[in-house]
Order: sequence, then C-alpha cells, then structure tokens
Amino acid sequence: MKTRDRILEVSLLLFNEEGESGLSSVDIANALEISPGNLYYHFKGKDAIIRALYDRFDEELRVILRGSKGGVASIEDNWVYIYILLEEIYDFRFFYRDIAGLLARYPDLAVRFRSLIAAKRNNIAQIIDDLERPGLIRVDKRLKSPLADQIITTLTFWLAGDALTKDVHDGPALIHKTVFQVMCLMVPYTGEAAPTVLGRMIRHFEEAKQ
Amino acid sequence: MKTRDRILEVSLLLFNEEGESGLSSVDIANALEISPGNLYYHFKGKDAIIRALYDRFDEELRVILRGSKGGVASIEDNWVYIYILLEEIYDFRFFYRDIAGLLARYPDLAVRFRSLIAAKRNNIAQIIDDLERPGLIRVDKRLKSPLADQIITTLTFWLAGDALTKDVHDGPALIHKTVFQVMCLMVPYTGEAAPTVLGRMIRHFEEAKQ
Repeated sequence: MKTRDRILEVSLLLFNEEGESGLSSVDIANALEISPGNLYYHFKGKDAIIRALYDRFDEELRVILRGSKGGVASIEDNWVYIYILLEEIYDFRFFYRDIAGLLARYPDLAVRFRSLIAAKRNNIAQIIDDLERPGLIRVDKRLKSPLADQIITTLTFWLAGDALTKDVHDGPALIHKTVFQVMCLMVPYTGEAAPTVLGRMIRHFEEAKQ
Repeated sequence: MKTRDRILEVSLLLFNEEGESGLSSVDIANALEISPGNLYYHFKGKDAIIRALYDRFDEELRVILRGSKGGVASIEDNWVYIYILLEEIYDFRFFYRDIAGLLARYPDLAVRFRSLIAAKRNNIAQIIDDLERPGLIRVDKRLKSPLADQIITTLTFWLAGDALTKDVHDGPALIHKTVFQVMCLMVPYTGEAAPTVLGRMIRHFEEAKQ
C-alpha cells in the first residue's frame, strides 16, 4: 500500500474511533510510525487529510446514489439499498457524529455536505416514485415531500442520535435498526399488504441481528 | 427585574443569537453593562449560567410534558401540543443547534439531556395511545415504537437540520413546518379519514404561515 493511502486509512480509523477534534497530525504520524515530516510530505496538515477523506466519501456515496437509478424495484431492494447507503455513511461515521462541530471547523465542507444531503434527498424522492409506479406503495402526493424529508432526517442524524442516547455503540446493530426504522416509514403506504410487509421486515430484521 | 434574572435572560438571548461556544462571561457582563465582578457575584462563570438555563428549560419542558396527560383528545389537540413543545425548545434553541458539541463541553448535562429525551419519548408513546383509544388513529402495535422513535428524532434534530441546510433561519416558519412534519407521520394511521385530515392540516399550515 502506498504511504498516502495508508495515511488516509489509519486517519479514518482513528477519527472514527476517537473523534476528529482531539487528534493532531502528530498523533496520526505516531500511529503510523512515520515522522511528522514524512506525513507533511503527503498532506499539509490534518485539514488536508480531512478534505481527502471527504473527497473519497463524497465520491463513493454519489456512486451509490447513481447506482439506485432503476435498481429499486421492490420493498426488499429498497431494504438492501438503504443498508448499503448506511454502511457507506458508517464507514465515514466521524463526519456524522458531530456534524455541526465539524462543519464549523471546516466551513468549506459545509457547502459540499449540504449538496450531498440535497442529492440524497432527490434520490429518496426518486425511490418513492419508483416504488409507487408498480403499485408497491401508494403515497398521497401531498405527503411525498414530508416523507422524503423524514427519511433524510433519519439518514442524517442516526449516528448523532445514537451518540446522544447510548454509551455503548454497536455499529452493525445500529445499521440494521436504522434500515428497519426507515422501512417502517414506508409500511403504512403499502396498503392492505402492510401487515405482511411488516411481518417480513421484522423477520428479516431479527435474522440480521443474529 | 432582579440582576440574576436579567443575567439569565440576556445570556439566553446572546447564546441563541450567536451560539454559546464563542461567548465568554465577560461578553455577557459587557452586554448587561455590569462589571465582571458583579456577574461573578451571581454566577461563578459561564458554566454556572449554562446550568441555570438548563435547569429552567428542563423544568419548563417537564411541566409541558406533564400537562399533556389526558389533554390530547384529537388530531387538532396534538397539533397544538406539538406546537407548544417546539416553541419551548425554540426558546432554548442554543442547546439543540449543536447538541454533541455542547454536551462534550458540559458532560454533566448529557445525563440530564438523555433523561429529558426519554421523558419526551414516553410522552409521545402515551399520546399515540391516547389518540388510538377513541379510534382517531390506528397503529399496528409493532409500528408504535418505531413511530415514537421517528417523532423523537425529529423533535431532537429539527434545529440542527435547519442549521445544516439553510443559511437564513426563520424561527416561526420552522416551528410550523416541523409541527406539520410530525403530524404528517400520523396521517397514514388515520385510515379513511387521511385525505380529509391532511387537507385540514395543510389549510391550518398555510394559514399559520401568513
């Protein structure tokens, strides 16, 4: 592995484990067992590392968002899709645990983060339409925008909510719970199928927990 | 007004307007046109002011939560109740704009904030039951807990979400939009009445905006 990639990988690990605000570029160099000078050769300080990680996250998330085009043709597809989306966010979870603090420290990222939320929202709105076309869900058109907003609130604040209300954080369990949470928002729109759809989701959720 | 109360009032105003993290107790004394020594006589530093404000918020919010017992007998009652809850939170909005950052700076408040969220969640779960008893909503019992979680996510992160996605913050409009958002979560559970209930909510929302 190239040094540049190793720096990014170890930094991401440290930021996710210990939070970004308390770590310096010297801490990162120490964890890598390289000199601060060597680190500086690749990245001009911690800011540059944060930005490179954000570039990577932004790129990967947009690939996932594009990939959903026409690919969500059932409630099960949607489950899997939300799962993939949450896993990607989880890989870069330090961005989401204290969003306000992070964006105050890196204001240039705020614009990009906002644009990414807007892209996620468009994506969710499109999926609602995709599920409606074959009649899998039926949403009063006046409720479509509030439903998309609600899903985006969950996709944006699930990690902050977990950080706020729990001392012990179990990532995989949290991802499954959050997929279930998002899917529950869709259940009442599946009409007569709702009890069956929900039963299937709960079984799926219980299996995933094991 | 007593000096102690004036200090709390002006501090709340400043924290809400400019954020808490950038302000010192000297800034507060200057805004009040009193000496730092006089401020110190009433509060031993900014921490003590923050804690006194939190005491007040906690007390007022719990009064509102208790007040809902048996008082939410219709969808309209619930609208008004959520409105009152959000207005109270809005009065102390600096606590909610950057929750993670604030609780990292005042860890003793984290325990109390968590207990307050739990009380809010119990309250919302109780209201769901209250609305179900006379048949105003009907929620699959397996969806009750996810619905309460969803409403709590919105009640906790509505201000952080607004701070994240908008440059211009219009408090009254945001409160109305958030009440509407929470109420939309209930609409699909009103059964055949859903289109009528939603129509009435939208009219109410449009009138409130004027």
